[in-house]
Amino acid sequence: MYDLYIANKNYSSWSLRPWVLLKTLNIPFTEHLHYFSTPIGENVQFKAFSPSSLVPALHDQGLTIWDSLAIAEYVYEADPRVWPANREARAFARSAAAEMHSGFSVLRNICTMTCGLRVKLHTISPALQRNIDRLDALFSEGLSRFGGPFLAGDTFTAVDAFYCPVAFRVQTYSLTLNPPAQAYIERLLSLPAMQDWYAAALAETVREPEHEAEVTEAGVIEADYRAV
Amino acid sequence: MYDLYIANKNYSSWSLRPWVLLKTLNIPFTEHLHYFSTPIGENVQFKAFSPSSLVPALHDQGLTIWDSLAIAEYVYEADPRVWPANREARAFARSAAAEMHSGFSVLRNICTMTCGLRVKLHTISPALQRNIDRLDALFSEGLSRFGGPFLAGDTFTAVDAFYCPVAFRVQTYSLTLNPPAQAYIERLLSLPAMQDWYAAALAETVREPEHEAEVTEAGVIEADYRAV
Ligand SMILES: N[C@@H](CCC(=O)N[C@@H](CS)C(=O)NCC(=O)O)C(=O)O
Ligand SMILES: N[C@@H](CCC(=O)N[C@@H](CS)C(=O)NCC(=O)O)C(=O)O
Repeated sequence: MYDLYIANKNYSSWSLRPWVLLKTLNIPFTEHLHYFSTPIGENVQFKAFSPSSLVPALHDQGLTIWDSLAIAEYVYEADPRVWPANREARAFARSAAAEMHSGFSVLRNICTMTCGLRVKLHTISPALQRNIDRLDALFSEGLSRFGGPFLAGDTFTAVDAFYCPVAFRVQTYSLTLNPPAQAYIERLLSLPAMQDWYAAALAETVREPEHEAEVTEAGVIEADYRAV
Repeated sequence: MYDLYIANKNYSSWSLRPWVLLKTLNIPFTEHLHYFSTPIGENVQFKAFSPSSLVPALHDQGLTIWDSLAIAEYVYEADPRVWPANREARAFARSAAAEMHSGFSVLRNICTMTCGLRVKLHTISPALQRNIDRLDALFSEGLSRFGGPFLAGDTFTAVDAFYCPVAFRVQTYSLTLNPPAQAYIERLLSLPAMQDWYAAALAETVREPEHEAEVTEAGVIEADYRAV
């Protein structure tokens, strides 16, 4: 059985990706949740299970796979449902997942994932708007080309998992997408695995000062649904 | 035959990855080089061949694959030499390639790729040093676990291609690595495909003001080997 190492469900966008992928495909795993400790980027204690000191990491049969996209490819070798069966859809899905992995830096830095909050951004910069416009274009293209309801066809695959953190960001920061893109985001938010993650995030009482500060730098908190 | 869209060889670190992979594996392709035009991040003219407006992009049989890591996986489906044949080495290689794809942000932002220059950094911040330390650890682990001379064994695979831009950065900014890591960097720099790329970069006379400015912000130019 897989062992998946993750961090706080409120904040850890990268952890969410393999977690929601495995859950939604009903692939069993044992979850190991370790809270971040500030300062960001110096989590030496994560070294015990991840050579990069970053989460997520997957342990299987003595191997460690320490990156979310590498985890997707590793699990794919054992379970073809991870990527679309259709070759064209698979090329699209991998391009879109890797685009998120290496890009959307403004969206990721300004609209940090923080599931339990609702935030009014101080401003939507042109660079942030370009990231949002790109989401609109990408979602519209995938949904229309492959017929939906998921981004690369009729089943949930790794590309959807890679955009699940975006769904929480759209919800937290009330980002405005075009109607098909917005409908897709709502479809992701209503997945059972996403609802499970969200409930667990709300139940967390641990607060990480650096992550909290990133949010108040970006906007004004209008609601906080987290347990105290 | 593949069509590969790339940008300036002096600056485009992401373009180098699939280019050096295909060249080193002797996989034929047609190169299409389009210069960046500033400002960074608004290259609408790249839309003509890449939906994200980013390079690299690969065109094949009517499909567009618009990300370097997705290109590696796409080519792997047709040519198993892209990743190591050994399952454990493959899991390592994919983790390391995806770690680069999503990480090393300080190294990437401060030590931007600019092949033809030699630069003395103003300072090596603790965050930059952590990225360098991580390279040391990663290279040492790969080389010792899989026996070298490449990062995941005895053949050049996509993980080496993903660290080729690091080789140019180490050369340009005189970064200090431990001896096995330094030897690996020199091995990458001496590959025929790397020497071809480097010669073409030196021959470029186009200068992009934003990319030039990034360098002078980070350090002092000590040598410029580029054609004028
Ligand atoms: N390549 C990684 C990126 C992982 C990453 O950056 N993880 C962050 C948290 S979501 C982390 O572990 N940070 C540790 C820290 O903040 O010290 C992946 O997708 O797996
Ligand atoms: N996901 C991408 C990242 C590509 C990327 O960021 N490319 C940069 C250049 S190396 C780019 O095209 N920038 C366009 C611009 O500066 O406007 C990949 O690895 O393929």
